[in-house]
Amino acid sequence: MTTNTNPLRAPQDRRLPRIAGPSGLVIFGVTGDLSRKKLMPAVYDLANRGLLPPGFSLVGFARRDWENEDFAQVVHDAVKEHSRTPFREEVWAQLAEGFRFVPGEFNDDDAFEKLRSTIDELDKARGTGGNFAFYLSVPPKFFPKVVEQLKKHHLSEGRNGSWRRAVIEKPFGHDLASAQELNRTVHEVFPPNEVFRIDHYLGKETVQNILALRFANTMFEPLWNRSYVDHVQITMAEDIGIGGRAGYYDGIGAARDVIQNHLLQLLALTAMEEPASFEAAALVREKIKVLGAVKLPADLSKHTVPGQYVRGWQGGQEVAGYLEEEGIPPDSRTDTYAAIKLQIDNRRWAGVPFYLRTGKRLGRRVTEVAVVFQRAPHLPFDSTATEELGQNALVIRIQPDEGITVRFGSKVPGTAMEVRDVSMDFAYGESFTESSPEAYERLLLDVLLGDANLFPRHQEVELSWTILDPIEEHWAKHGRPQPYTSGTWGPAAADEMLARDGRSWRRP
Amino acid sequence: MTTNTNPLRAPQDRRLPRIAGPSGLVIFGVTGDLSRKKLMPAVYDLANRGLLPPGFSLVGFARRDWENEDFAQVVHDAVKEHSRTPFREEVWAQLAEGFRFVPGEFNDDDAFEKLRSTIDELDKARGTGGNFAFYLSVPPKFFPKVVEQLKKHHLSEGRNGSWRRAVIEKPFGHDLASAQELNRTVHEVFPPNEVFRIDHYLGKETVQNILALRFANTMFEPLWNRSYVDHVQITMAEDIGIGGRAGYYDGIGAARDVIQNHLLQLLALTAMEEPASFEAAALVREKIKVLGAVKLPADLSKHTVPGQYVRGWQGGQEVAGYLEEEGIPPDSRTDTYAAIKLQIDNRRWAGVPFYLRTGKRLGRRVTEVAVVFQRAPHLPFDSTATEELGQNALVIRIQPDEGITVRFGSKVPGTAMEVRDVSMDFAYGESFTESSPEAYERLLLDVLLGDANLFPRHQEVELSWTILDPIEEHWAKHGRPQPYTSGTWGPAAADEMLARDGRSWRRP
Repeated sequence: MTTNTNPLRAPQDRRLPRIAGPSGLVIFGVTGDLSRKKLMPAVYDLANRGLLPPGFSLVGFARRDWENEDFAQVVHDAVKEHSRTPFREEVWAQLAEGFRFVPGEFNDDDAFEKLRSTIDELDKARGTGGNFAFYLSVPPKFFPKVVEQLKKHHLSEGRNGSWRRAVIEKPFGHDLASAQELNRTVHEVFPPNEVFRIDHYLGKETVQNILALRFANTMFEPLWNRSYVDHVQITMAEDIGIGGRAGYYDGIGAARDVIQNHLLQLLALTAMEEPASFEAAALVREKIKVLGAVKLPADLSKHTVPGQYVRGWQGGQEVAGYLEEEGIPPDSRTDTYAAIKLQIDNRRWAGVPFYLRTGKRLGRRVTEVAVVFQRAPHLPFDSTATEELGQNALVIRIQPDEGITVRFGSKVPGTAMEVRDVSMDFAYGESFTESSPEAYERLLLDVLLGDANLFPRHQEVELSWTILDPIEEHWAKHGRPQPYTSGTWGPAAADEMLARDGRSWRRP
Repeated sequence: MTTNTNPLRAPQDRRLPRIAGPSGLVIFGVTGDLSRKKLMPAVYDLANRGLLPPGFSLVGFARRDWENEDFAQVVHDAVKEHSRTPFREEVWAQLAEGFRFVPGEFNDDDAFEKLRSTIDELDKARGTGGNFAFYLSVPPKFFPKVVEQLKKHHLSEGRNGSWRRAVIEKPFGHDLASAQELNRTVHEVFPPNEVFRIDHYLGKETVQNILALRFANTMFEPLWNRSYVDHVQITMAEDIGIGGRAGYYDGIGAARDVIQNHLLQLLALTAMEEPASFEAAALVREKIKVLGAVKLPADLSKHTVPGQYVRGWQGGQEVAGYLEEEGIPPDSRTDTYAAIKLQIDNRRWAGVPFYLRTGKRLGRRVTEVAVVFQRAPHLPFDSTATEELGQNALVIRIQPDEGITVRFGSKVPGTAMEVRDVSMDFAYGESFTESSPEAYERLLLDVLLGDANLFPRHQEVELSWTILDPIEEHWAKHGRPQPYTSGTWGPAAADEMLARDGRSWRRP
């Protein structure tokens, strides 16, 4: 048996709150931004929702001269500032009793021994049962050292039925070779099904809803294939620039940063066949299958476009170009925009292009999957009556304004039979009284429950790099990224790329 | 050539305003409610929209001692009270110049001669070109006399390329035999393509939009068949009672008054195959085809239900039962509610029941067509996760709140993968700045343009009676209609009728 199934949770209990069993969380790199802005608030929000066990414990590990109380104060401030749910003293008091801090460097054996004794103490004092997840919120170059230390100090294996899990954050390598190397390193210490790769996009309700939409309904799946779909557009647009991330971003670029993980995962969920169930193994099987069927265009010059933002206006302010950003070499060829066309070579999708694009400093912050349908095979209307009729589309709005839009043609009132595009809308926020948990709440809880549905497996990561590597190599060989003015929707070449296919990008 | 094509309007001009050519309208029964509340305001609204020719003329014929000025005053008051568009003196002044009144009885030869000379005078004075439509806003028993007089006084045939048309209102008979008799009578005088039968429901934008929805889009038609549709519900519910219409309504009942025309027309538009074009002849062909394929259930006792309202509460007021209404015999067996199940024996719909219902004194005023889809053939979810998931449905809201609703399943936020019904909505009023013309505006203009798309042909009327006659005969033989309390959704037997099929009525 795998650990995917929480023994506390019978299958028929899915509608009951999923509450984690006895367990604790260790965060390496606990002083970082992610930890303060996302992980600590998520832990508190889970506790506040009653989804953590009474003895839940949180251990911080970092190079700081802190006592437990100092750590507790840091968590307190982070929670006050960033948590989603209201602050309640009694919840906080109970949670804070389980806070521990272990000071140390990653190569410090004493610190790891201290970590081990801390965990033993927590098991005794708070009943964490030996079940701990290690969250590596540290740059990937430290992964090998940390997991090596966890193994060396007997922290990576549970005993007497308890579990130990590793949680890692992207980037999962920067190409296929480095990703494989990373996976080997981690899997030498943790078995594959105890490794949880965080792609926070998969924690979003709207992303999970792609599966519900497709497979809980009768209406959509019959249309979800090459007989009716003209093409699919998957967009993640940011209006911000690189901010303070120059050191990380330069040399990585938009395609590696976003397409390799978020957009290819969205593609997989949109395009995959129905899984036998929503258990992790069945889901992974289908995602791997469809990612394995992805085919690159023969001419990468025509069907992929890297871009780089230049000075422009955004939100009423003039903003600097990428090459003017602090810390960016003036001759950097890093792509801050990437558009690529992919085909999926299977019976369902043959001949249906999937256009993926992402970029910084674009017109608006928006992530969406747009399934654009073919025109009706015949229109029994006068030709001018359908001049303002576009193609039907089903748009899954991932963020913001989470929801679904269907665009279709409707008769214009008062005319004989003129047809024009209108929209039908479903807004997630209006339809449910339940507010949506943050992605990290969902994902941290899943780690503690051992529910791996929403975590890409190493095969998916490697397949994604297999798709991206030839594109990156091509871009490295053939010239600079195309400049685009900040605040616009990317380089002209990206528009031409679609125009050549007789299509155009949505302006979401 | 038929007169269906307005020679002034080339096919490529469909998006230009459709403006009637030189013409006039004669209304028999001009003192009636329909004339004052609908026809006169519609004439004014058309003029105000610039869709009538400059010399348009309106002739009233009735048993009143009126001069032209008296008639003009009556129209003036009706327009002021009931027209949709703002009153503008200059439009009114020009329109009113074309008003004439002819006093007389239907058997009065002098009056019809006066009508003839009036028309001749208008042709000369206002350039109506001999094109006149005769609107028979009179009880059907007078139809034979009026058309006979029109023929006798040479009013029913145009000369030198001008046209003469007859417009008649329901009821088009009360069974097949009487409908055939009526059609024979009218067609002896006017050729079938110059006879316009008004079913004002067909003038509603939302009804016409059924065709746009189905045939201008890619998304819906693939689902529009027995492979995906579980059943269709067509509802026209009224909250009012019979009001002052006892004399007309008793002995006619809900099925004859509503199902025979409105609901079977909605069924035809919902179920028919794609017409070759939206020209009248092509549309009629498809409607006739699908109405001809309608099959009654073998056991009419089980699959049809007549009902009759009894005393109850509506809108906070106690209201009388049907048998207590003024002018209704205390032993009347007239149905004020009717529910019937029909099958359509063709490849597209075999095995898909169409449930039609209509009634007075029901919970709410609403007309809608609900296409209810089958459940997904397989749900890769835990069984409890879909407990609150119903069947997908596409609901065309004819009135009020004109628009379209799609009901489908979506993930409930925060749960592992629980799915619940949500709705996606398109509201006609919000999506178009164009306000919807009244049905009578559209239909009167179509009469003047000779556009017969929205007018049921005699074959459709006769086919509808062929469907209804056996049901009425069965009801006449087998007992009283089922009582239902005013303000509820009809008799229990109607619920049982669907429950027996494992289904239930929508509560719209």
